Amino acid sequence: MKICVIGLGLLGGSFALGVRNTLDDVEIIGVDKNPEHSQKALELGIIDKIMTMEDAVPQATIAVIATPVNIIEYQLPFVLDLISPMGVVIDLGSTKGNICKAAEDHPKRARYVATHPIAGTENSGPESAFKGLFRNKTMIICDREKSDPIAYQFIKSIFKDLDMQVSYMDSVEHDKHIAYVSHLSHISSFALGATVLDMEKSEKSIFAMAGSGFSSTVRLAKSSPAMWAPIFEQNAENISEALGSYIEHLKSFKEIIDNKDMEKSTQVMNRVNDIRRVLKGIDIKS
Amino acid sequence: MKICVIGLGLLGGSFALGVRNTLDDVEIIGVDKNPEHSQKALELGIIDKIMTMEDAVPQATIAVIATPVNIIEYQLPFVLDLISPMGVVIDLGSTKGNICKAAEDHPKRARYVATHPIAGTENSGPESAFKGLFRNKTMIICDREKSDPIAYQFIKSIFKDLDMQVSYMDSVEHDKHIAYVSHLSHISSFALGATVLDMEKSEKSIFAMAGSGFSSTVRLAKSSPAMWAPIFEQNAENISEALGSYIEHLKSFKEIIDNKDMEKSTQVMNRVNDIRRVLKGIDIKS
Repeated sequence: MKICVIGLGLLGGSFALGVRNTLDDVEIIGVDKNPEHSQKALELGIIDKIMTMEDAVPQATIAVIATPVNIIEYQLPFVLDLISPMGVVIDLGSTKGNICKAAEDHPKRARYVATHPIAGTENSGPESAFKGLFRNKTMIICDREKSDPIAYQFIKSIFKDLDMQVSYMDSVEHDKHIAYVSHLSHISSFALGATVLDMEKSEKSIFAMAGSGFSSTVRLAKSSPAMWAPIFEQNAENISEALGSYIEHLKSFKEIIDNKDMEKSTQVMNRVNDIRRVLKGIDIKS
Repeated sequence: MKICVIGLGLLGGSFALGVRNTLDDVEIIGVDKNPEHSQKALELGIIDKIMTMEDAVPQATIAVIATPVNIIEYQLPFVLDLISPMGVVIDLGSTKGNICKAAEDHPKRARYVATHPIAGTENSGPESAFKGLFRNKTMIICDREKSDPIAYQFIKSIFKDLDMQVSYMDSVEHDKHIAYVSHLSHISSFALGATVLDMEKSEKSIFAMAGSGFSSTVRLAKSSPAMWAPIFEQNAENISEALGSYIEHLKSFKEIIDNKDMEKSTQVMNRVNDIRRVLKGIDIKS
């Protein structure tokens, strides 16, 4: 089976390495506008050959678009144009609303399955890809009623073979929820990094005191701007709402601190400790 | 050597387990106002016996105060009253300014060494203690010129035997820096947890989509309110400043998102990616 992977970064590369392990006789054709990435992916055994999108997609059983979300939105109609009548197109983007809209009126819409793997690290590029990235993670499939049932089942079985849990969601609802449980985390981390780096200008030795708690909250600030700027742009309304609510919570916490109100801060923290229940569910998966 | 540990939670318990491993013939006397904690610590082999503070401290070579910071501030003068002329008192609190002030005019001030181990987890209580907690972590010693040089060298050697890196700092400067690289991280996490738990009220299934990024940024929201409320109260001015700056960064990021300004958000994130340099230093230690 020929699989064409467009975008040879962390996600595209890890998908390629994953299916190499689970599918028989797979040939991975790599497409990337950055020749260094393609060359590196070839050297690392992520892909078997490099081709242009125009040459690769028509011969592929699956075309996987793993570029930044604004590029996916732009590429998806072209890839659908190119895909063979029995081929399937998927994307691995972290937003789904605009991307699904870009395929909405395409005559081959049924050949597209909208997917979002809840998996990633703060690293990017082909060197960061590894075959276990998707293991025990959740794969969200959006608007499945718009995909051909066989195409959809086929893609689902490929994810299940990667040891993923598949769940379903409306693409609009997806974008709203993911703003809270992923996109907001990234912004909180980037802003935290910015705050402390600012402080470092006057207090040089500030990071001598940073430990694992700091590291954990700021880790996502290492993430790739090329990937995240388009996510923030595409999901701006939902993120703005989530971020607005986050800022309100912080302002109210600041007021509690300014009043040195230990009773109130204890109350708030006790309530939020309920996050243990939530994290238990997530940590089982990872 | 007799060591009296006051407060048998994560830090006190881990210190006891650590020094059991590095010191010969050590006897650990546990003091805790919660009889269940003392009993548990005895069962777990963290301590050898349970005593009252009044009975335990006078016979101890080292008295370690590992209670919440407001309690440390209150207990420190009493423990100094009780300690033998050659004994040493230390505390493991996450703030240092007020605590050092509480000992400032004590006739036995020189028997006190102000310490803050940059180590911890989001768990609490004696069950969460483990002997490796301090390994490869930083121990900050504050205002060392106010401690007896031999007492200070003795405490330093105990931390070095626990494989800690010891560094020095003024207590006021300590509180300012730690607000940025530890206390602020906890607030960002608590507020993130609060924001998403609020959202869950209307969107039940929201956490089905949460992955390791979310988990990493919100992990600290599991932390103990009994420990953290007093820290926020004691270090209110510094935390308020750090939090104010964080909120400003978030507001400016929100504006960028509302304007869908990809160029600007890329610029900001590129700058913050410099946090990699900082995190490399921290992650080597852990």
